[in-house]
Amino acid sequence: MTLKMRIIPVILSGGSGTRLWPMSTAACPKQFLALTGDESMFVQTLARVDDPTLFGAPLVVANARHQSLIVAQLGGRDARLLLEPAARNTAPAIALAAVAAPDTLLLVMPSDHVILGVPAFRAAIARALPLAADGWLCTFGITPEAPETGYGYIQLGTSLAEGVHQVARFVEKPDAGRAAEMIHAGDHVWNGGIFLFRADAYLAALAEHAPAILAACEDAIVTAAHDGVVIHPNAVAFEASPSESIDYAVMEKAAKVAVVPVSMGWSDVGSWDALATLSATDTDGNALSGDIVTVDTRDCMIKSDGIRIATIGLEGFTVIASGNDVLIMPKGHAQAVKTVVAKLG
Amino acid sequence: MTLKMRIIPVILSGGSGTRLWPMSTAACPKQFLALTGDESMFVQTLARVDDPTLFGAPLVVANARHQSLIVAQLGGRDARLLLEPAARNTAPAIALAAVAAPDTLLLVMPSDHVILGVPAFRAAIARALPLAADGWLCTFGITPEAPETGYGYIQLGTSLAEGVHQVARFVEKPDAGRAAEMIHAGDHVWNGGIFLFRADAYLAALAEHAPAILAACEDAIVTAAHDGVVIHPNAVAFEASPSESIDYAVMEKAAKVAVVPVSMGWSDVGSWDALATLSATDTDGNALSGDIVTVDTRDCMIKSDGIRIATIGLEGFTVIASGNDVLIMPKGHAQAVKTVVAKLG
Repeated sequence: MTLKMRIIPVILSGGSGTRLWPMSTAACPKQFLALTGDESMFVQTLARVDDPTLFGAPLVVANARHQSLIVAQLGGRDARLLLEPAARNTAPAIALAAVAAPDTLLLVMPSDHVILGVPAFRAAIARALPLAADGWLCTFGITPEAPETGYGYIQLGTSLAEGVHQVARFVEKPDAGRAAEMIHAGDHVWNGGIFLFRADAYLAALAEHAPAILAACEDAIVTAAHDGVVIHPNAVAFEASPSESIDYAVMEKAAKVAVVPVSMGWSDVGSWDALATLSATDTDGNALSGDIVTVDTRDCMIKSDGIRIATIGLEGFTVIASGNDVLIMPKGHAQAVKTVVAKLG
Repeated sequence: MTLKMRIIPVILSGGSGTRLWPMSTAACPKQFLALTGDESMFVQTLARVDDPTLFGAPLVVANARHQSLIVAQLGGRDARLLLEPAARNTAPAIALAAVAAPDTLLLVMPSDHVILGVPAFRAAIARALPLAADGWLCTFGITPEAPETGYGYIQLGTSLAEGVHQVARFVEKPDAGRAAEMIHAGDHVWNGGIFLFRADAYLAALAEHAPAILAACEDAIVTAAHDGVVIHPNAVAFEASPSESIDYAVMEKAAKVAVVPVSMGWSDVGSWDALATLSATDTDGNALSGDIVTVDTRDCMIKSDGIRIATIGLEGFTVIASGNDVLIMPKGHAQAVKTVVAKLG
């Protein structure tokens, strides 16, 4: 293997994104919405790797129901689509890509994250590249900004190269006390769910640690239906796969796992509160978009795609209107959106 | 004149009710909405005087644009409609009724008030009746419950009969300090805008204190167009009338003005805050109507006629959705609704 091996971006679009309800729905999850700028996070993710000198055409792994959304947002870009007949979490999704794109390096990225500092991301990829080419499973660790309890953490182990560490251990989403300890210790980074590795290295790790996933995904690709650039893995075969995350199935168990710490303006836009921190505000501290009338309103994020919203005396609130729905909550309560969605059935 | 003179209810429906926006609009003001029960306040007002042993068929004085709404809500009840070609405040509106229904007693009532204690109202009418028959202009004074600054006040003068006083003076909407003084003094009541008097007594008072209003309204009725039970006063004639309230044009100036204090569960439903105090609440203190999903929400009034509203962590708020509009504000801010309406143009 050489550094000349092609890097194929693998864009994971399997999430349902209900934490950003009512704008994000199962039919049109958040990666397809222009929440953080003029373009959707899916399109921003494509743009991030739109550089033929470094990257091949991306492989989009997505829910089959989103095919037309994806085709529309690709806007003619060269890409292949791997349409999952069922949701089986990230380990099988990436396995499909690895089987479909052997002899490549895979740069695995969620489609619903924001990365403001693309040069920093590129530099981190460059640091990871020699190790990935050498068979290491590389993950990118986000330099933490606060003791967040909504992310997994990665503890840095011994240095493998400039800015690359062996992974000491993966830590599941911690409680507040544990998060504070890790931030204080200074040797932990957030697990951003972005990976770089050789397809064959990932498949070898699956063979060792999750053979049932490998078998199901190989079977699903071998018997897949092809329609131009669209691959339909065999549903019966794929549905036989265990549903496991790549962290659980592979990264926590494999031997050669590296982490590249990086500070790159990353956000998983995992809640309306997270989006609020990313949004530009006016002189009243408000981030308004849509048909909004405010009186004595400060530090609010108010977004509407149609309904007209009038507020009086509101401070520190999030109001989101989409279609026939309006969500109203003080900032800091966004984790309860899933409770609302559950109540809606 | 005898006590056998017929009492004709005069139902004033001229208000535009924008303080209850977005549900109340110029096209369908609050008296036509079922905000306080299963029926609109207009229908509740009709029901309050639906007693042929005491009252003749009502005379509804209304904005011409609301004719079809009124006909629909009358639901076949016997009534006459006086459709104003322009808004000229209450003195001319009532003058039209007095000219159109001579030789009667007029019981003048706004169409957009709530009276929970109809027996108390009837008893107050009974107390006022002998004086009204004797030519007194009688008003009903609401026993005050708080130092409200949103109402006019009436100071009780000498007693004229059991539960009836001569009016010492009318007080315009006071500031908070003045309101507290009046409540403390104990001899002031709220001006509820409800009157009982002989049509000819009112016309005589107009002749003395507001002859231009009388002349315009007499002219408008003499040259009116009639269409069954609907009277269309002559627009040119009516528009020549000064625009003045009955209080300013007549009650504050006439000699024989009486007030009947009454405690009858009255509200002018003058704001969303006022409506909230009238609304039944659930065990969380919420008054919800429409398609509402709440999480950690207490002491809120949330009403929707279509849009689905989800709230998280809301306490002490009013949320009103109507058509394509949503209004959000903490309770106590309802006076600013007019600012919103003004901003909407």
